[in-house]
Amino acid sequence: MRVIPLGGIPELAEGDDLARRLVDSASQIGGFQTRDVVVVAQKAVSKVEGNVVLLADVEPSNEARELAGDGDPRRMEVILRESRTIVRSRPPLVIAETQHGFVCASAGVDSSNAGQPDTVVLLPRDPDASARCLRAAISDRSGIDVAVIVSDSFGRPWRQGTTDVALGVSGLAPVLDLAGERDSVGYELHATQIAVADELAGAAELVMGKTDGIPAAIVRGVRISGDGSGADLLMPRDRDLFR
Amino acid sequence: MRVIPLGGIPELAEGDDLARRLVDSASQIGGFQTRDVVVVAQKAVSKVEGNVVLLADVEPSNEARELAGDGDPRRMEVILRESRTIVRSRPPLVIAETQHGFVCASAGVDSSNAGQPDTVVLLPRDPDASARCLRAAISDRSGIDVAVIVSDSFGRPWRQGTTDVALGVSGLAPVLDLAGERDSVGYELHATQIAVADELAGAAELVMGKTDGIPAAIVRGVRISGDGSGADLLMPRDRDLFR
Repeated sequence: MRVIPLGGIPELAEGDDLARRLVDSASQIGGFQTRDVVVVAQKAVSKVEGNVVLLADVEPSNEARELAGDGDPRRMEVILRESRTIVRSRPPLVIAETQHGFVCASAGVDSSNAGQPDTVVLLPRDPDASARCLRAAISDRSGIDVAVIVSDSFGRPWRQGTTDVALGVSGLAPVLDLAGERDSVGYELHATQIAVADELAGAAELVMGKTDGIPAAIVRGVRISGDGSGADLLMPRDRDLFR
Repeated sequence: MRVIPLGGIPELAEGDDLARRLVDSASQIGGFQTRDVVVVAQKAVSKVEGNVVLLADVEPSNEARELAGDGDPRRMEVILRESRTIVRSRPPLVIAETQHGFVCASAGVDSSNAGQPDTVVLLPRDPDASARCLRAAISDRSGIDVAVIVSDSFGRPWRQGTTDVALGVSGLAPVLDLAGERDSVGYELHATQIAVADELAGAAELVMGKTDGIPAAIVRGVRISGDGSGADLLMPRDRDLFR
């Protein structure tokens, strides 16, 4: 398996043709290949989709002022608007369930790499739709059918640091289910589901970095199959012991 | 970055020279290189370390019988012995903090791939020591200084499926801290810590699989630095909102 950064992509802005940028970048290293997995940072996607908020336009509520602590209440107001429920809070830190159903810090609202100061980037409105559109546009511009993952960096309970996970998916099944398969001594693997899309997103992060303008990477040579959606990675509420 | 499976390694048993097996496997594909990251599944490590329990030898307590539900109370007894605290339980499912401080399902006690029926494999007693020993033994047998990660598959709250994470580490800093670095428009990245060792473990899982006897993989061509321990990946209790 190879993980190949897609660099040389200039700062992105609303309306930019991200698929064209990715195809051009890939062409510098021989082009996309069928069954490549293209992992794209959600921030790149949200920027071209215009999913960005100017804090100057935001009037914070009292709840936002309270939760913000020493932080910017306008940013907290944006977080609250993105949230379905607040899972935990310790001002100015908030862990929220987003309108999509992701549970993450600040409901995915991010101040860094927004392209200009006093601006925050939201998660894509529909990361699966973003992945599907990017996949179709890459196919249109290159003739190659790739799979696409829209990724973001999430923290985890109990563990330090973030790992990248898949928000939106097109062209691969994000969870590999080994139920019914047997191990080398014939013991049935009862409940082994592997979140391959999250592992692919994490692998891509290792070559993307946070500061050096590489918004995407190719993972090549990994066995992928089926199709599915980022929602397949969300734990159903009735099976969730942590909500 | 390349991720290369280390296959052709026969079923492992207590006392086997795992480093020798890994060096022999790597030699089939050109050998290890300096700064390779060698990711080894904890189960392989625990088997050669003899960290395996025969259920026939286990007398379950009343607490174990209660928590086991329809499951095997002897297995639950082993889980309880491995646990410092039970974080959540819904019989027969238990999420526990292990004696090492990892929070995971069944305190890491695993029935699959144990090598024989009615046997469970525990986590290594000291995964950092296991990683250090393996690294030293690989250096001894090959002359090459690699980094070593001992990995396991952990579930996550709110998300479906497992991803592989690092339990023990030697020869790399498991958390990359970007505090003080600036993004492309000069916005300081305040609190961005990336759990690179977990992402490396997840990348390796993608080529290791669960059923086909590939207990290790090389990750080559990724920037690693420093040194550290698997304990660096554990969230300090006072910063943990989920315990």
